[in-house]
Amino acid sequence: MLLAAAPPARPPNPEVEVAKLVGAALTDGLTYARVEDLSDRIGPRLSGSKGAANAVLWAKAQLEAEGLKPVLEPVEVPHWVRGEERGEISSDLRFGAMPLALTALGGCGATPAEGLTAEVVEVDSLQALAALGEKARGKIVYFTHHMAGPQDYGQGSVLRTHGANAAAKLGAVAMLVRSLSTASLRAPHTGMTAFDPGVAPIPAAALALADSERLHRALAAGPVKVHLVLTPKILPDADSFNVVAQVNGREKPEEIVEFSAHLDSWDLAQGAEDDAAGVAMVLEAARLISRLSPPPRRTVRFVLYMNEENGQAGGKAYAKAHASELSRHVAALEADFGAARPMGIGVHAGPGAEAVLAALARPLATLGAGSVVAGHAGGADVDELEGVPLVSVRQDGTHYFDVHHSAADTLDHIRPLELALASAAWTALTYQLAESTQLLPRPAK
Amino acid sequence: MLLAAAPPARPPNPEVEVAKLVGAALTDGLTYARVEDLSDRIGPRLSGSKGAANAVLWAKAQLEAEGLKPVLEPVEVPHWVRGEERGEISSDLRFGAMPLALTALGGCGATPAEGLTAEVVEVDSLQALAALGEKARGKIVYFTHHMAGPQDYGQGSVLRTHGANAAAKLGAVAMLVRSLSTASLRAPHTGMTAFDPGVAPIPAAALALADSERLHRALAAGPVKVHLVLTPKILPDADSFNVVAQVNGREKPEEIVEFSAHLDSWDLAQGAEDDAAGVAMVLEAARLISRLSPPPRRTVRFVLYMNEENGQAGGKAYAKAHASELSRHVAALEADFGAARPMGIGVHAGPGAEAVLAALARPLATLGAGSVVAGHAGGADVDELEGVPLVSVRQDGTHYFDVHHSAADTLDHIRPLELALASAAWTALTYQLAESTQLLPRPAK
Repeated sequence: MLLAAAPPARPPNPEVEVAKLVGAALTDGLTYARVEDLSDRIGPRLSGSKGAANAVLWAKAQLEAEGLKPVLEPVEVPHWVRGEERGEISSDLRFGAMPLALTALGGCGATPAEGLTAEVVEVDSLQALAALGEKARGKIVYFTHHMAGPQDYGQGSVLRTHGANAAAKLGAVAMLVRSLSTASLRAPHTGMTAFDPGVAPIPAAALALADSERLHRALAAGPVKVHLVLTPKILPDADSFNVVAQVNGREKPEEIVEFSAHLDSWDLAQGAEDDAAGVAMVLEAARLISRLSPPPRRTVRFVLYMNEENGQAGGKAYAKAHASELSRHVAALEADFGAARPMGIGVHAGPGAEAVLAALARPLATLGAGSVVAGHAGGADVDELEGVPLVSVRQDGTHYFDVHHSAADTLDHIRPLELALASAAWTALTYQLAESTQLLPRPAK
Repeated sequence: MLLAAAPPARPPNPEVEVAKLVGAALTDGLTYARVEDLSDRIGPRLSGSKGAANAVLWAKAQLEAEGLKPVLEPVEVPHWVRGEERGEISSDLRFGAMPLALTALGGCGATPAEGLTAEVVEVDSLQALAALGEKARGKIVYFTHHMAGPQDYGQGSVLRTHGANAAAKLGAVAMLVRSLSTASLRAPHTGMTAFDPGVAPIPAAALALADSERLHRALAAGPVKVHLVLTPKILPDADSFNVVAQVNGREKPEEIVEFSAHLDSWDLAQGAEDDAAGVAMVLEAARLISRLSPPPRRTVRFVLYMNEENGQAGGKAYAKAHASELSRHVAALEADFGAARPMGIGVHAGPGAEAVLAALARPLATLGAGSVVAGHAGGADVDELEGVPLVSVRQDGTHYFDVHHSAADTLDHIRPLELALASAAWTALTYQLAESTQLLPRPAK
């Protein structure tokens, strides 16, 4: 009996492979199971915390369980720890009958232990604050804004991120900001606030929508003082890690498609939407793409970043450590917009990229991700990768900012089917980019 | 020149009067203004508190400003004061990374200052608890339930009201219950819990939905202990008041139509929906009906009850003080279901009542209140009025239990147009009952 020679390796049929990936993601239940595990068993994981350290070990173990060889890449992260937080309107007893629902912004400074009391000045922009000039000295600067939907997040986040710094430079003693939120059952929404070098961080907090409006009404009735107790601590930077693993390409191993999410979360809740969902989708892609035989044409690298929420130290560390490789990153994706269903594909690349991507997205039409749509295609971490084409599955954001950065970012808001649809789409899109015969044109620097 | 004799008094045309009442309620803006005033300037007003005392004075002043002569009728109310409240899952470190969002139930007992730690047993009914028997001793009894919508409030509230008492009788050390809520951004919803005479109140708290589900998942994974700190105080009963005013009838002053709401609220928020909205609608009716010339055929009595939330002492005190008049109460209404638009008319009376009421409701069809619909027509206070026909404007309850009894019961949830439509409907219905030539048949005792 003659032994047959091994059949010549045949290139995979991408349509068949995509169908396999989608079928698995929609049936294995693992994306949801991992969101649950990271949410319930690790929980809050702000940079520098025990939770963040546990999340790194958890991610490493998950990747090892899938047969990959994760590498922990060092990142030095800020270490800010929330303290007591409370406030009340103190200048008009009749408006002050109920505490203000508020939460400190990450990176902010502290009041004295007994708190501070100061008059409030309300402004709705950095320009309006600048116009106040000396009138802000000694005051609590309160930023209002109008967030009618997810599309307004960007303009509101400018106030949250930079408002305290601008107020501090004018001698303000504290800063309050209306939560960046599209729903409110009295939960305030935190976020990062940044100070220029040499500017001493002042206390800063977000107000729940109900309390923001109450403060606004009180100010409309006359001068208002607020008593504020915020006792967070800014500790020395801490050691942490990005978690990185990859599946080597069969033909172009030097060309890299990166699919990422971030491991850290805010401290107020489980970070189920932000960003356990993204992490679980990256792990699902790692599981399913690592099982393909043969592997995709190019290398697929899975990156779970640390410190997206308050510093992007992980994104910066990765860009620095891998600087010599960035020209060979042919696409980078970051899943950091929750767990809702796919709505399209986003891209930030050079001219002609949309046509290439539209062809790759075609098999994802039924999932909702068959067309290229406008909008931001990056993520706070992959935005650090200069010159790299950025691609994303755009997800439904209608309710994302209902829970984002608040105590309500918990597992109960995750709908398993929508999450699985998103997971399938991100996995398939990552595969398509790694298998494609055509590269995306690179964006202008 | 001869002086003409005064024209003979002509009876009013009810359709014209109803149109006047509706037009005023939909244009004067006063119902919303009063919800805002009571919410912002009085705020939380649980029985026995400074806020409740202020609410009584506020209500008296509002009625006096409308030219009425309010009477303060004494009521002795329970005086329960919330203390510290926190909890965490302590038996499985990995599930315990995040505090449990919870709030004590009104009337419950306290843990030691340092808290207590005990194993949790989960049940979904009083029957299931009874079946546990001795196995509940020394445990924290945790009640789950499924509240798919407002229609499930009744069955869930049985657990919240009576679960701690039943658990205490079996030797349980504390009780937890899933919040009676139809939405959750991590706000727990409080409520009253009652103990039989001789049963020492145990600590009892409601969990936010996210935390209820997390506890459920933890229990599914194995035995769970919870550490609980609740330090409320049960103080001696306090003196308070129902606020009562009336417009005397022109033909049948001895026959009384009562329109009521409750002044007290839970302590966690402004009580904007529960029940500043109802109070403001009663005040609007008092304003508009007291301006009618001539007044309605019967007396209209406006009652703002104290202590609806945790004891119904006001309802009981009124029924007792006015026992001799109850047979002359021809209808009683209580607005205690928020600020949303009218959906119909409810009635609890004798056979034939629906036809009488349908005729009276006809002018309210455009407002949404033109038909008699099924469902509860009373209110916790007017339910004490034995033998009195109960009538209500049924309001849309879709989102009522999103905020009910939680820190989210704040002014921002009130939609002024819907509130004005409801206010117009309640005012007009009260008028129609007071003017009608036909009485409602009385319910069987």
